[in-house]
Amino acid sequence: MTRIIVIGGDAAGASAAGRAKRLDPSLEVTVFERTQYTSYAACGLPYVVGGQIPEPSDVIARTPEAHRDRGLDVRTGHEVTSIDTGARTVEVRELATDRVSTQSWDALLIATGASPTRPPFDGIDANGIMGIHTIPDAVAIDEIVRDRGPRRAVVVGGGYIGLEMAEAFVSRGLEVTLVELLDQPMATMDPDMGARVADAMLHMGIQTRLGTGVKGFEAGDDGWVRSVATSEGSVDADVVVLGLGVRPNVTLARDAGIPIGPSGGIATDARMATLTEGVFAAGDCAESLHRVSLRPVSIALGTHANKQGRVAGTNLAGGAARFGGVIGTAITKVGDTEIARTGLNEREAAEAGFDTVSAVAEGRTRAGYYPDASRMAVKIVAQRSSGRMLGAQIVGGSESAKRIDVLALAVWDAKSVDEFEMLDLSYAPPFAPVWETAMIAARLAGEKATSGVGG
Amino acid sequence: MTRIIVIGGDAAGASAAGRAKRLDPSLEVTVFERTQYTSYAACGLPYVVGGQIPEPSDVIARTPEAHRDRGLDVRTGHEVTSIDTGARTVEVRELATDRVSTQSWDALLIATGASPTRPPFDGIDANGIMGIHTIPDAVAIDEIVRDRGPRRAVVVGGGYIGLEMAEAFVSRGLEVTLVELLDQPMATMDPDMGARVADAMLHMGIQTRLGTGVKGFEAGDDGWVRSVATSEGSVDADVVVLGLGVRPNVTLARDAGIPIGPSGGIATDARMATLTEGVFAAGDCAESLHRVSLRPVSIALGTHANKQGRVAGTNLAGGAARFGGVIGTAITKVGDTEIARTGLNEREAAEAGFDTVSAVAEGRTRAGYYPDASRMAVKIVAQRSSGRMLGAQIVGGSESAKRIDVLALAVWDAKSVDEFEMLDLSYAPPFAPVWETAMIAARLAGEKATSGVGG
Repeated sequence: MTRIIVIGGDAAGASAAGRAKRLDPSLEVTVFERTQYTSYAACGLPYVVGGQIPEPSDVIARTPEAHRDRGLDVRTGHEVTSIDTGARTVEVRELATDRVSTQSWDALLIATGASPTRPPFDGIDANGIMGIHTIPDAVAIDEIVRDRGPRRAVVVGGGYIGLEMAEAFVSRGLEVTLVELLDQPMATMDPDMGARVADAMLHMGIQTRLGTGVKGFEAGDDGWVRSVATSEGSVDADVVVLGLGVRPNVTLARDAGIPIGPSGGIATDARMATLTEGVFAAGDCAESLHRVSLRPVSIALGTHANKQGRVAGTNLAGGAARFGGVIGTAITKVGDTEIARTGLNEREAAEAGFDTVSAVAEGRTRAGYYPDASRMAVKIVAQRSSGRMLGAQIVGGSESAKRIDVLALAVWDAKSVDEFEMLDLSYAPPFAPVWETAMIAARLAGEKATSGVGG
Repeated sequence: MTRIIVIGGDAAGASAAGRAKRLDPSLEVTVFERTQYTSYAACGLPYVVGGQIPEPSDVIARTPEAHRDRGLDVRTGHEVTSIDTGARTVEVRELATDRVSTQSWDALLIATGASPTRPPFDGIDANGIMGIHTIPDAVAIDEIVRDRGPRRAVVVGGGYIGLEMAEAFVSRGLEVTLVELLDQPMATMDPDMGARVADAMLHMGIQTRLGTGVKGFEAGDDGWVRSVATSEGSVDADVVVLGLGVRPNVTLARDAGIPIGPSGGIATDARMATLTEGVFAAGDCAESLHRVSLRPVSIALGTHANKQGRVAGTNLAGGAARFGGVIGTAITKVGDTEIARTGLNEREAAEAGFDTVSAVAEGRTRAGYYPDASRMAVKIVAQRSSGRMLGAQIVGGSESAKRIDVLALAVWDAKSVDEFEMLDLSYAPPFAPVWETAMIAARLAGEKATSGVGG
């Protein structure tokens, strides 16, 4: 019997395990998961704190029991402590008993995820300085808000998690300050689009301290955080959330001699195979190819983890599936403002060697004469010489951000702005103006591109 | 000086005229428009009747005066009665004075639009049997509803206009019956998706008489319509709207010997040039190439008219622009139900010679655990042998239908379902589940396709 071992039972690991077992029920598939949880949506955790999601367990897509019902041998509370790629074994510790065993595999999937960055700031171990990456994290923050009645929250980091946690604390009635080292929130957007996000945050009452570095934290006599020391002075805080990004968990792989790529994730090919025979990697711990920059990247996102897990599962079962890479599509919201991006921004495009043009168009989500239209700004970044679409960004009101998807496919397929402007996209007054704002942005970019005939 | 004459001052004609003049201000550009209106959005008229748009004039994008301010010679109330392609002249009648003149051109654009189908039913000339194609039509229907207080409206035809007018009358408090010859509303959708639309209409209180042919109309002694005679009996009616589609206005072109294509519109190439030297055509009167069936089609839609007008304008001014064709993307709503489609449905695909597979996925617009998600069904039609995407259809709640755009680009680019399933589309709990419903539909279709590896 062929035995597959999967390290990690979250999105990628559980998807792969389930997929492999479904394709070949004769496989023996064992999943070792350190925590008590499988298949949960970390992306939903800010909304647990914000109160939109009533129960933390709601973000669990599939429990260990449900996986077992599908024929998987899921062992929660088990930590894999080492991999031997020569002997094809892993060493596993059962956390409750400290019992260690050696388990052999014919094929191995590493799906160890990523961990939040927690820099060694002075005083970072004070009570009330939280990350938001696991269900217990969300439960703990929720309990702090409920039981301790904090008045002032500080969120460190202006990326997706930072924005979502700022919104969550506003929903819970706290005064919120967001501290960000850069001069804009949402560093994956260009500065002009980031400024629109900053404006929206100010309008919803979030204090933003941009260009401000955290130096440390001060705690009171009770051991709880009282303020954040920054490069621009002290900010009072009753609770702090760190949203400083995540790093792939690759220690296990590195210690086993499995090559790590330049972006810090485990190097993989389109099959999600590592450079070590018989070993696959998927999800937040694995590198992906960025289809536009053609560089390996590590982007932690549930949708990639699910797709990569499915691809790895097919290949673990002897099939032939390929993951097509990523282009950095992302979407979020803060209050009523929706934010989305795909592909390369201006800085990223320059780093990837592209000479670019870009244009911003402002428009509405519905015909101008149709009620309740939202405003939105759409930016397109294109290659100067060819008009090839390299990236796009949207900041707008309700029903604006999901429009990034058609731009994502355009970037994925290296469409030109001239062709994009002429696409047959859907039009009716309750849904769009005759010219989608993205088409106008494409036209404006085309007029700047060398090749542009401007429609 | 080069003189350009444009016949018709609505979306296509006015766009072309403005574009040509902007590219080459030395051009003398004259637009003859029969009515008093230019550049208005016929697609908005149902919402004028429904009350969402307060003033009929709100649907006017640009008045004749505004066009004149941009240097165009716009003559409203002028009807072109014949074209001489040899002498390069048109004969024009000023409607107010009946004065006829002959005007010469170096290049001509025909943008005569389309007219609603009005079959010779018995009694069709009774008062209160309305079309909805022009601003005066919308004003007249609005006045009937306001001044005569009708109780029962009958809408004949279950296409876009029929659905939108049914919704409009519901908004105004009328009892509405929709009569449709086919067994489903929305004949451009497959029957299974059309049934979902029919269900939605029933839920909002619209009586639907499907598989029912209109035989005629009966009027009262006052000359106003009282009932509609159908193949399934009589239906009481105080006001009737015909939504039976439109036909390209090509008499002027045909009489001048300019070739008409097989779909009934003026034959054009990608430059929007007709087969007659120096003569262009754009908008509802012109044929377009359908990129999937590779057949010429006549699809009357404001977004095509604007794009074709822009292309024609560039070429009238000596530039080189191309219209890339259409794929039949369309979107509408009835009450809270959104409806969209693109590409070929199963029947159209069979007619175009494709052996197809198709799949429907049901899903939600947000993560399952995030509040206020809408349900939606997404159908994908693909080529059996290759998995190539041929068409897609969506019926769902709020925030569902605009997702057709990424499917439209996938169909436009002949993507395979296997690739679509792996695209980097945007994901976050307030906007989508980890697997977009369209991706699941693509996966299911892929499992049926000969080539499908099923992800």
